[in-house]
Amino acid sequence: MIRIGILGYGNLGRGVEKAVNASPDMELKAVFTRRDPSTLKIATAGVPVYAEADAEKMKDEIDVLILCGGSATDLPTQGPKYAKMFNTIDSFDTHAKIPEYFPAVDAAAKEGNNVSVISVGWDPGMFSLQRLLGNCILPDGKDYTFWGRGVSQGHSDAIRRIEGVQDARQYTVPVPEAIEAVRAGKNPELSTREKHTRECFVVAKEGADLKKIEEEIVNMPNYFADYNTTVTFISQEELNEKHSGIPHGGFVIRSGATGDMKHIIEYSLKLDSNPEFTSSVLVAYARAAYKLASEGKSGAMTVFDIAPAYLSPLSGEELRKTLL
Amino acid sequence: MIRIGILGYGNLGRGVEKAVNASPDMELKAVFTRRDPSTLKIATAGVPVYAEADAEKMKDEIDVLILCGGSATDLPTQGPKYAKMFNTIDSFDTHAKIPEYFPAVDAAAKEGNNVSVISVGWDPGMFSLQRLLGNCILPDGKDYTFWGRGVSQGHSDAIRRIEGVQDARQYTVPVPEAIEAVRAGKNPELSTREKHTRECFVVAKEGADLKKIEEEIVNMPNYFADYNTTVTFISQEELNEKHSGIPHGGFVIRSGATGDMKHIIEYSLKLDSNPEFTSSVLVAYARAAYKLASEGKSGAMTVFDIAPAYLSPLSGEELRKTLL
Repeated sequence: MIRIGILGYGNLGRGVEKAVNASPDMELKAVFTRRDPSTLKIATAGVPVYAEADAEKMKDEIDVLILCGGSATDLPTQGPKYAKMFNTIDSFDTHAKIPEYFPAVDAAAKEGNNVSVISVGWDPGMFSLQRLLGNCILPDGKDYTFWGRGVSQGHSDAIRRIEGVQDARQYTVPVPEAIEAVRAGKNPELSTREKHTRECFVVAKEGADLKKIEEEIVNMPNYFADYNTTVTFISQEELNEKHSGIPHGGFVIRSGATGDMKHIIEYSLKLDSNPEFTSSVLVAYARAAYKLASEGKSGAMTVFDIAPAYLSPLSGEELRKTLL
Repeated sequence: MIRIGILGYGNLGRGVEKAVNASPDMELKAVFTRRDPSTLKIATAGVPVYAEADAEKMKDEIDVLILCGGSATDLPTQGPKYAKMFNTIDSFDTHAKIPEYFPAVDAAAKEGNNVSVISVGWDPGMFSLQRLLGNCILPDGKDYTFWGRGVSQGHSDAIRRIEGVQDARQYTVPVPEAIEAVRAGKNPELSTREKHTRECFVVAKEGADLKKIEEEIVNMPNYFADYNTTVTFISQEELNEKHSGIPHGGFVIRSGATGDMKHIIEYSLKLDSNPEFTSSVLVAYARAAYKLASEGKSGAMTVFDIAPAYLSPLSGEELRKTLL
């Protein structure tokens, strides 16, 4: 049994717990939290909850620690810190900072003789893998990544910070015509506006100026100004009822050619729960980290560096027989 | 430069030649043929053509030999034979015989201290990889593979063997309703007949009994009897004009769940030329074989055993920066 620890018990941590419990070769050993451990009720009976500060003491009882913190403030310090003590998996997704995050985790993991797989999930993660494969198979081609239809937490938060807004949910939606043009092999040049639209469902506080809220949303730089954005005001009840899920998904398309022959490779995800799917990817890579560490490997890795067979509980022989 | 040799100059060999020439880090060193080399004109100027028997003499001038023979009779002997002399790539696709082919190639490759990647292409190959990923990420789920719309060479050949048939082309076509049901997460149990239909375009010899030909086709065991099959008689001119391409493609769908949350992973290919796409995959894995052999690895491998980064000419740092 691969003994798993979870650091951070938010949406992602709860998803990891579910995925570990669904894996017959894994066992959830402990959950670590920054909250007071006595106040945290977790879903799995009999699994202890400890303060984060106690994690190091469990070094020898945990094979892989899955870091379920956020990329903005948690992982930049947690990643290198825990890579010294444990094999780790994280979902670090600040693309622009990966070039500095990777070497920091790599040095720590090598010091601790551990394997640390960074930036695991679906983007970065499975989408990255598909972009790499598409580029290598069809070097003469163009990449397209579309996200959605799905909830963007960052954009929802940005709306909630506007004066007069009580609650909000933002969906990122790929433009169907853009996807169709790409699928048809037309290799269009697409602006930000042509690729995605943004749908905002907003609960206003009583007496708030709706017109002003809408203006602030659609003109918000970086978040909304470059997109066609729709704003719909609804009640808190309707938001709770119809928009409480965290679905997401998207498309990675490689449109390439060999001479005058055209080829389209498309990978898509349609996910009822973004954090639960991400967690499932993290847990598959936890298995890989465990196996790689058992072979004596160490250092930071990404999905690019791991042979797919490591993700599976099956032997090479079984895999060739059943899935090749 | 990675020096590539091609063994066998049919559709696949020509596709490999094209893909190698499109790869800036590769150089086509020689083509080997069973035909009289003096009769074979290849597309690339200045590249020598040799008899297959002379391949061994080129051992030290070729980094990877790409075996472009067929799975029925060529590869079962060529695979182990050349794995002793060269790093090799092949597209062995007789799924049922992979469990005996792999160890034969493995032993030979280890003896020769070479890396031999078997069963590369899109199925087996990219589709296998997607099946593996889907199974590892969503262990609670169901796999669906659909092929087409595309030309099946084996089925076309089977029709051509019928008395009174002059020429024929067979398309395998996935049933749209079946794909839709899978995409909708309905997890249907699909019979052979419910998954694919078969479209046959047949040129009859003059005076042939069309009724009899049609009967023979639709009732042919294994090939057509289990499918809804349509037979359309056309002229040789129409066949040449409208059905001379070798398009193919298909879909791998993993329909899975985490508790009551449903997730659909879909991978699809739409290929103008089946052999040219297959060749492009072979060439990407030739790069991987070269790199793995340079690291001192040896033995048989499949797409399951190779970390994706090996397929790329870019460094780990460049990959993380541009594709992660």
